[in-house]
Amino acid sequence: MLLGRVVGTIWATKKDEKLEGMKFQIVRAVDLDYRPLNNFLVAVDSVGAGAGEIVLIAQGSSGRLTWLTKDKPVDAVIMAIVDRLDVEVPESEWEEALK
Amino acid sequence: MLLGRVVGTIWATKKDEKLEGMKFQIVRAVDLDYRPLNNFLVAVDSVGAGAGEIVLIAQGSSGRLTWLTKDKPVDAVIMAIVDRLDVEVPESEWEEALK
Amino acid sequence: MLLGRVVGTIWATKKDEKLEGMKFQIVRAVDLDYRPLNNFLVAVDSVGAGAGEIVLIAQGSSGRLTWLTKDKPVDAVIMAIVDRLDVEVPESEWEEALK
Amino acid sequence: MLLGRVVGTIWATKKDEKLEGMKFQIVRAVDLDYRPLNNFLVAVDSVGAGAGEIVLIAQGSSGRLTWLTKDKPVDAVIMAIVDRLDVEVPESEWEEALK
Amino acid sequence: MLLGRVVGTIWATKKDEKLEGMKFQIVRAVDLDYRPLNNFLVAVDSVGAGAGEIVLIAQGSSGRLTWLTKDKPVDAVIMAIVDRLDVEVPESEWEEALK
Repeated sequence: MLLGRVVGTIWATKKDEKLEGMKFQIVRAVDLDYRPLNNFLVAVDSVGAGAGEIVLIAQGSSGRLTWLTKDKPVDAVIMAIVDRLDVEVPESEWEEALK
Repeated sequence: MLLGRVVGTIWATKKDEKLEGMKFQIVRAVDLDYRPLNNFLVAVDSVGAGAGEIVLIAQGSSGRLTWLTKDKPVDAVIMAIVDRLDVEVPESEWEEALK
Repeated sequence: MLLGRVVGTIWATKKDEKLEGMKFQIVRAVDLDYRPLNNFLVAVDSVGAGAGEIVLIAQGSSGRLTWLTKDKPVDAVIMAIVDRLDVEVPESEWEEALK
Repeated sequence: MLLGRVVGTIWATKKDEKLEGMKFQIVRAVDLDYRPLNNFLVAVDSVGAGAGEIVLIAQGSSGRLTWLTKDKPVDAVIMAIVDRLDVEVPESEWEEALK
Repeated sequence: MLLGRVVGTIWATKKDEKLEGMKFQIVRAVDLDYRPLNNFLVAVDSVGAGAGEIVLIAQGSSGRLTWLTKDKPVDAVIMAIVDRLDVEVPESEWEEALK
């Protein structure tokens, strides 16, 4: 899954009819310190994620396996809101952790 | 989904017979200010998108889930035309929004 | 779909038996002026594309939806030969076209 | 499959209900000397991999083919823990090995 | 398909039970002169490819369509061993070949 942050919303009136009522969120990829990376994508929200929240995104056919996106022409879904993350092997301890 | 802009059209007479009558659009990826990015792709249009319009594209097997592309050998479809987008967390407010 | 150009052929005697008789073409990605880009891939040809021709490629599971590639272990297929392309929104007219 | 190393864990209370009880691991891609590469992803753990371990990850629909991830909205799964790897053709012997 | 070269082997005792007996090969991507590129991946071998051989790899769900990998949690399979490749449109003749 991709780690990202909801930064905005897309409005689209003219769309495939199976997409009626879905919310399209703009999600920017983030690093493990939640700093913004360059890439972003648009994902359907299945868990009620709001602007500013850190989320996980499932892409491809897996993006269609939530209750909301089944058989829909969408390739990315927000399927979890991140409470926090624990980095147990930081780069500074990379080598010793390998031993 | 990928955010992009329709910039042109592909003409192909010789093609898989299941593709008869489909319109192949050239879509350039754009950033959140609609500025052109480097990558582009060719997508089937399922919503009547014209040149210059900002659109969303679903890729992979999800690209085959519109009425038009079902079971067709296409891996990208325009499934929505973007009216506008709202960026609620700009990079300038990234840090404070995290607090 | 990816826009590319057939630049060569792969010969492989030892292969999955379901691939018997298929032609594996080397396709280099091209830009909208048909100039070569850095990436290339190997695709099965389902439309009789010859060396030098500009083609469209469907990837992933969509690459298995031509008559030739159904249920085969291939992830890229040439499904159309490009006659020509029309760029209606060149980068030089990007801004005014947005208004 | 992607070669990577488990470096941490994601905590997410609010998620698709089918994801209940799954462990989301942060996995950083590594090179053949187990040095960290730039990209990372979040994967469900199906084999009991702990922090610091070198693992293999299957992505896309293949990520849903373990006992744990079947029909779930996840696109990456840890499906093996790497004991060791043997590089038989190092770059220093690339040319002679081709002869 | 990806063009690559088998450079080594992965050993993994603890893995999804459906993977028992499979050989995981390390494959480095190569260019059309068989020079090593930066990226590599791990693929299941379905055709008996040995170290040093040039191979084709099918990725994604297509990687599960060999006799060996059906319904298995793997996303890349070696499905052909390359005997040779013919480049019919080298970059030095790119322009004239377009005419």
